[in-house]
Amino acid sequence: MIYENVEIGKNSSIGEHVVIEKGVIIGENVTIGHHVVIKAETVIGDNVTIGNLTSLGKTPSTNKKMARKPVSTLEPLKIGHNVTIGDNVVLYRGVVVADDAFIGDLASIREKTSVGSTSIIGRSATIENNTVIGKRVTIQTGSYVTADMTIEDDVFIGPCVSSSNDKYMGEGNYCHQGPFIKKGAKIGNNVTLLPGIIIGEKAVVGAGAVVTKDVPPYTTSVGNPANTLKR
Amino acid sequence: MIYENVEIGKNSSIGEHVVIEKGVIIGENVTIGHHVVIKAETVIGDNVTIGNLTSLGKTPSTNKKMARKPVSTLEPLKIGHNVTIGDNVVLYRGVVVADDAFIGDLASIREKTSVGSTSIIGRSATIENNTVIGKRVTIQTGSYVTADMTIEDDVFIGPCVSSSNDKYMGEGNYCHQGPFIKKGAKIGNNVTLLPGIIIGEKAVVGAGAVVTKDVPPYTTSVGNPANTLKR
Amino acid sequence: MIYENVEIGKNSSIGEHVVIEKGVIIGENVTIGHHVVIKAETVIGDNVTIGNLTSLGKTPSTNKKMARKPVSTLEPLKIGHNVTIGDNVVLYRGVVVADDAFIGDLASIREKTSVGSTSIIGRSATIENNTVIGKRVTIQTGSYVTADMTIEDDVFIGPCVSSSNDKYMGEGNYCHQGPFIKKGAKIGNNVTLLPGIIIGEKAVVGAGAVVTKDVPPYTTSVGNPANTLKR
Repeated sequence: MIYENVEIGKNSSIGEHVVIEKGVIIGENVTIGHHVVIKAETVIGDNVTIGNLTSLGKTPSTNKKMARKPVSTLEPLKIGHNVTIGDNVVLYRGVVVADDAFIGDLASIREKTSVGSTSIIGRSATIENNTVIGKRVTIQTGSYVTADMTIEDDVFIGPCVSSSNDKYMGEGNYCHQGPFIKKGAKIGNNVTLLPGIIIGEKAVVGAGAVVTKDVPPYTTSVGNPANTLKR
Repeated sequence: MIYENVEIGKNSSIGEHVVIEKGVIIGENVTIGHHVVIKAETVIGDNVTIGNLTSLGKTPSTNKKMARKPVSTLEPLKIGHNVTIGDNVVLYRGVVVADDAFIGDLASIREKTSVGSTSIIGRSATIENNTVIGKRVTIQTGSYVTADMTIEDDVFIGPCVSSSNDKYMGEGNYCHQGPFIKKGAKIGNNVTLLPGIIIGEKAVVGAGAVVTKDVPPYTTSVGNPANTLKR
Repeated sequence: MIYENVEIGKNSSIGEHVVIEKGVIIGENVTIGHHVVIKAETVIGDNVTIGNLTSLGKTPSTNKKMARKPVSTLEPLKIGHNVTIGDNVVLYRGVVVADDAFIGDLASIREKTSVGSTSIIGRSATIENNTVIGKRVTIQTGSYVTADMTIEDDVFIGPCVSSSNDKYMGEGNYCHQGPFIKKGAKIGNNVTLLPGIIIGEKAVVGAGAVVTKDVPPYTTSVGNPANTLKR
C-alpha cells in the first residue's frame, strides 16, 4: 500500500506488503524488504537497503509517569546514501542517519538522535533520544546508549555495554545527563557507565568494568569500581 | 484480515495488513498500527495505542528439554484502558496489562504475568512468566525480569538489569524462585540479581552491583559482591 | 505471496500475508504464523512451528567499516524436524538448526552458525556468525554469543551473559577468537567473558563474574576479575 505523494527513485525495488505513508521520498537503487512500514515524510537516500519487518519514522509516545514528554514537532526521519538497515528495526521520527551507516537487526533508535557517517549500530542495540553519535563509531550488539549522551568520532563500544543518565533513578529532581565518550575511546563488553561521567580521548575501559568516575585520556581502567591501571 | 466474532469499538482505527483472529474485543478510540497480529480472544480496552509489527496474545510453546511445560489453559491477553504498546512487541496469552501502562518497542512479556497500572516496561525489556509487577513501576530498556519474581509498587529498575531464578542452573532439582523487590526500591543499571534474594523497601542498589544476598530496607549497596554501605 | 518452485508438505498451514520466496522446501505438519518472510531456498523439516513476523534465510550485509566481509556463497538456511521458532526472530542464510531445537521470540542468529539438537536459544538472545553450539545447550534470554565461539554439549548459559572475540577492540590487527566453553559448564547470569578464554568441563562461573583468564574444569569461579574458589 503506497499512499499519495510518495516519490520513488529509479531502479528501486519494494517488497511485498510494504506500507509507505504520504510524502515519503525514496532515492535511487533502494531495496526495501517485505512488510516494511515507512511513516509519513521519511526521506531515504540513494543505494539504501532496508530489511524485512522494519518500522521507519515512528512518532514517539509517552504515558503519564514518564518524566520527559515527546517533542511535539520533530523533523522527519532522514536516512543518507548507502545506508544498510536490518530486519525488525525501529527508527523514530527525528533521527538522522548519515551516509554509509549500518544498523543491525532488531535495533531501535529514538528521536532527536544522529548517527554519523560510516558508523555501525549492532543488532539489538538500543539508542535513546537526544544523543549524538559521531563518525566511524562502532556500537556493538546489544549495547544500550542512554539519552543525553555524546559519543565522539572513532569510538568503539563493545557488546552489551550499559549506560545511564539518571543519578537519582526516577526521582525527577535532577538534570539527566548521559556519559560523554571522547574521540577514539574503547569500551569493553558488558561495561557499566554511570550518569555524566567523561571517558577521555583514546582511553580504554576493560570488559565488565563499572565506571563511577571520569576516566583520564590515554589510560586503561578495569574493575568494579573501575580503577585506572598504572602505566 | 479480520476473523469472525470480532468486536471493534467506535472511533477505532486499524492499520494495513492487520490480522485480528476470532473473538477479539477492541474498545473505543483504539489505534492499531500496520502488520499487527492479534490472536484469538484478546481483550483491548479504550484509548489504547498499538504500534506496528506487534504480536498480541501468543500461546506459549516449549521443547522437550524445557523444565517447565506451558499451562494448557490460559486466560486471554487483557489490555486495560489508555495503554500504549510499541512496535515489534510480543505479548503472550495469560498476560494482564493494567490501565495507563506503557510497553516499549521490541519488548516481550510471557504468560501469567501482570503489569500494574501506570507502569513502564522499556524497549527491548524481556519479562518472564509467572511474575507480578506492581503499580507505577519503571523497568528500563533492555532489563530482564526472570520468572517467579515479584516487583512491588513504585520500584525503579534501571537499564540492562539482569535477574535469575535458578540457583542450580538447569539441574532441575530446585524450586525456581526469582528475586523479590520491595516497595520503592531502586536498582541501578546493569545490576545482577541472584535467585531468591530480597531487596528491602526503598533500598538502593548501585549500578553494576552483583547482589548475592538480601539487601536490608533503606540501605545502599554497591560492588561485586554487593556490600551495604555504612550510614 | 508464494513464489515459484516452492514445496509445501501435507498438513502444513500458512498464516496471512506470508512471503515464501522461490525454491523453499517446507516439510509436513508445519505451522507458519502471520507475516513471516522465508527467503529463497530455505529448507524446513517436519513438525516445525514458526511464529509471527519472523524472517528466515536472510543474506548478510556489511558496510565499509566492517572488518569481516560476508561470505559470498552460503548454504541455504536449514531447519530440522520438530523445531519451534518464536515471533520476530531473524535467522540468516548459512545457519543450521538441528532437530528439536527451540528459538525464542526476538532472537537472531547470523550465518555459518549451527545449533545442536534439543538446544534452546532464549528470547532476545543474539548469536553471531561462525559459531558452533552443541546439543542440549541452554542459552537463556538476552545472552550474547560472539563470533568464532564454541559451546560444547550440555552447556548452560544463564540470562544476559556477554562474550567478546576482539582483544584489541576494532584495531583489526588480531585474529578474532571467541571463548571456548567445554562440555557441561554452567555460566551464571550477566557474566562477562573475554576473548579466547577457555571454560573447562563442568566448571561453574557465578553470576556477574568477569572472566579474564581460563577457568579450570570442575571448579567454581566468581568476582571481578573472576577467581577460582578453593575446594
